Amino acid sequence: MIHVRPAMPGDVPQILQFIRDLAEYERELDSVVATEAMLSEALFGDRTSAEAVIAEVDGTPVGFALFFHNFSTWTGRPGIYVEDLYVSPEARGAGAGEALLRHVAGLALDRGCARLELAVLDWNQPAIDFYRAIGAQPMDEWKVQRVSGDTLAALAGR
Amino acid sequence: MIHVRPAMPGDVPQILQFIRDLAEYERELDSVVATEAMLSEALFGDRTSAEAVIAEVDGTPVGFALFFHNFSTWTGRPGIYVEDLYVSPEARGAGAGEALLRHVAGLALDRGCARLELAVLDWNQPAIDFYRAIGAQPMDEWKVQRVSGDTLAALAGR
Repeated sequence: MIHVRPAMPGDVPQILQFIRDLAEYERELDSVVATEAMLSEALFGDRTSAEAVIAEVDGTPVGFALFFHNFSTWTGRPGIYVEDLYVSPEARGAGAGEALLRHVAGLALDRGCARLELAVLDWNQPAIDFYRAIGAQPMDEWKVQRVSGDTLAALAGR
Repeated sequence: MIHVRPAMPGDVPQILQFIRDLAEYERELDSVVATEAMLSEALFGDRTSAEAVIAEVDGTPVGFALFFHNFSTWTGRPGIYVEDLYVSPEARGAGAGEALLRHVAGLALDRGCARLELAVLDWNQPAIDFYRAIGAQPMDEWKVQRVSGDTLAALAGR
């Protein structure tokens, strides 16, 4: 029986492990420099940057979703962007991923959001098939651009 | 002389006009249902969803950037996502777009953000060339998925 609940401060070590497991699946484990302290601050600090929910089976965490609000200038309403959605390999196929997304979709409606968005890696066919099955619309004409590190400092003139 | 400043409540009608001009350029004018009241609430209400800055030439607004914070689980730090960046046709080529992005990049560094991101339409070659020139990295392997409207309600089981 899958149960989805809001994350609590005591979940931070488990969430960081899930983040590392997901990054390893995405072949980017070296990119994870987040610490438990940084996650605690982001999720439960004075000025939170994100929220998380945990999927449990018989009280054991099997996955999580981490999300924050974005804003659509066309609709004039906020949305929810799911940054990470992860289910541990041994728990896959039982509906935990869909239960997590259904929970976040409910939060989006409760909060008057116009939409729920996330990004998937173009080689992650099981995830792409899942998003097609729930009716998600691929926004393939939009290409994300990122400025970070020295390039960000140079852009800011520092 | 280009000057970038934070948007003020009195700028909302101008910002909505810029949003409509940008949507028309993106061939999506019919998608704009935002009103001045919705934008005022999002930018200046009790619980803001986004921020905006205005580029002026000799005191006349010529463009804007609208942005909000996102969060990177890998870096453990917030980022800035630029939802809209627009310069009016008659003011293009004078550096207003770059001035807007430089200003937002400075805010990102001041706030401890790891990165600045935005999305560009795959046929908007002048914009793509501009992002290449400032050193932005294309995240082409990530494909954005969107759930909205009836599909969002169905996902939430409503």
